[in-house]
Amino acid sequence: MKVAILGNGDWGSAIAQLSNRRSHSIQIWARNPRDHSRETNDLGKCLSGSEVVFFAVPSHAMREVALATREHLPKAALLVSLAKGIEEETGKRMSEVLTEVTGRTAPLVLSGPSFASEVSRGDPCAVVCASPDESAACRIQTAFTSDDFRIYTNVDLAGVEWGGSLKNVIAIAAGVCVGLQLGQSALAALITRGMAELTRIGTILGGKTQTFFGLSGVGDLILTCSSSLSRNRRLGEALGRGESLPHAVEGLKGTPEGLRTARSVHQILKMRGMEAPILQEVYSILYEQKQPMEAVRQLMAREPKPEF
Amino acid sequence: MKVAILGNGDWGSAIAQLSNRRSHSIQIWARNPRDHSRETNDLGKCLSGSEVVFFAVPSHAMREVALATREHLPKAALLVSLAKGIEEETGKRMSEVLTEVTGRTAPLVLSGPSFASEVSRGDPCAVVCASPDESAACRIQTAFTSDDFRIYTNVDLAGVEWGGSLKNVIAIAAGVCVGLQLGQSALAALITRGMAELTRIGTILGGKTQTFFGLSGVGDLILTCSSSLSRNRRLGEALGRGESLPHAVEGLKGTPEGLRTARSVHQILKMRGMEAPILQEVYSILYEQKQPMEAVRQLMAREPKPEF
Repeated sequence: MKVAILGNGDWGSAIAQLSNRRSHSIQIWARNPRDHSRETNDLGKCLSGSEVVFFAVPSHAMREVALATREHLPKAALLVSLAKGIEEETGKRMSEVLTEVTGRTAPLVLSGPSFASEVSRGDPCAVVCASPDESAACRIQTAFTSDDFRIYTNVDLAGVEWGGSLKNVIAIAAGVCVGLQLGQSALAALITRGMAELTRIGTILGGKTQTFFGLSGVGDLILTCSSSLSRNRRLGEALGRGESLPHAVEGLKGTPEGLRTARSVHQILKMRGMEAPILQEVYSILYEQKQPMEAVRQLMAREPKPEF
Repeated sequence: MKVAILGNGDWGSAIAQLSNRRSHSIQIWARNPRDHSRETNDLGKCLSGSEVVFFAVPSHAMREVALATREHLPKAALLVSLAKGIEEETGKRMSEVLTEVTGRTAPLVLSGPSFASEVSRGDPCAVVCASPDESAACRIQTAFTSDDFRIYTNVDLAGVEWGGSLKNVIAIAAGVCVGLQLGQSALAALITRGMAELTRIGTILGGKTQTFFGLSGVGDLILTCSSSLSRNRRLGEALGRGESLPHAVEGLKGTPEGLRTARSVHQILKMRGMEAPILQEVYSILYEQKQPMEAVRQLMAREPKPEF
């Protein structure tokens, strides 16, 4: 199978590894190629003849890269987004951006609990390939599944994308808990309440409830909230320790997706009049100079009540 | 309020701390008192006049301790179980054992993501107090809630107890993943699939689905699976590293509840003809000398399929 990979970051490399394991032929496009024997900055050359195109770029670059691919995209190529965020200006999901720009009606998304570094190393992973076109999802499943990389299919594109995006904001809250040294019990409680919030909001936004309980929802939430390999959690940790936002962001390699997502989600919540205490406290910490300890206190101080 | 605490282990001490914070008067009973100014081995003296009795003993000791309390229990005292296991010989939940032995129809259970050491230290925690008698649960909620210890009520006693028990077995599987160094993505996938399994089995056994998605289910599962403070996970880690069961148990301070629960649950699954791949692989590792790596391989090797 001929595979085009757009982006030479962590996920671009991980997909290249997976492709090699299944002996697919690969072409990697990068704005700034690091290794000219494997990578090109010629998009037309990269896409020529490709059967699958992976968009391994950050959410904020998706529209621009998709626009640039338009005149080169082979007609039958499957388009797969790997980005876990939403477009800031429009609040659109990545698959919506891809469809809008390319006119392809059934783009795919690969998501779920997986660090690119672990995928590259061959550690076992289980992920979800989502598309409204189930046969397209099955083609990706068949082409990229290996002993250590299990792909489940799901037709609920909206649920998979909202899960992947919202969990990054919850992960910032989890990091704040860690930075404030509140202990592991508090972190587990936060993840549990975060999961309920993500499910409730994600369902209103068009996802199916059961998707949020799956790999791309709770699974990815657990991974992102529990591991200091996550940039989103590390951002929260720094804020919890009292660092300023610019300083905290500077300390990370690359901007975590949750930073922008928190702002877009805040807009959506406001427009729709939805309540989401954790997402809102994260927004206040990031953009309204709220003290992390004060935010946590308010989350804890609500009236005692039945669990459901 | 007059509080009797049966047991002077980690949880006995944590409840004593919580009681002190709310200025309750406490009496601690222990078979072998460590501190004679605070603890007694005279059960009658401990229980005399008590309004709440906490059973802070392991599951396998619950029936014996409950039997011994019978002649001393004040008529109106609320009985609260803290044990997260089921009776091995009968497969009964702790509240069922308490009811059977004492004749009290509405015992309570306190459960949820919380390490006793963190509760004692005053780290923030959110837990569940369950009882079919909602007003009894509210009395405990009112009497023991503090700034750092939030209690939610829930009437689904069966769901709360099955969640607390089954998660210990899943935590052994999580530990095996860690011991085998499979990486954090694999651990998150295991917890996610474990959560689905716990919910499916727990619902068949009489719990409500939504309870398993709450603090006493997923919340406690996440905590127990993610932290090396958990004895159940540490047992799995040792087995994953290749230690024998006796050697692995020896290395822990006290037998983890999941060891017995795995066996009882295996019986129940067999009797009822239910399938539960993770619970069954844990049983095989513990009691059928199955190699941990082989068990994981079988969990990973199932046919590619839709997520739901």
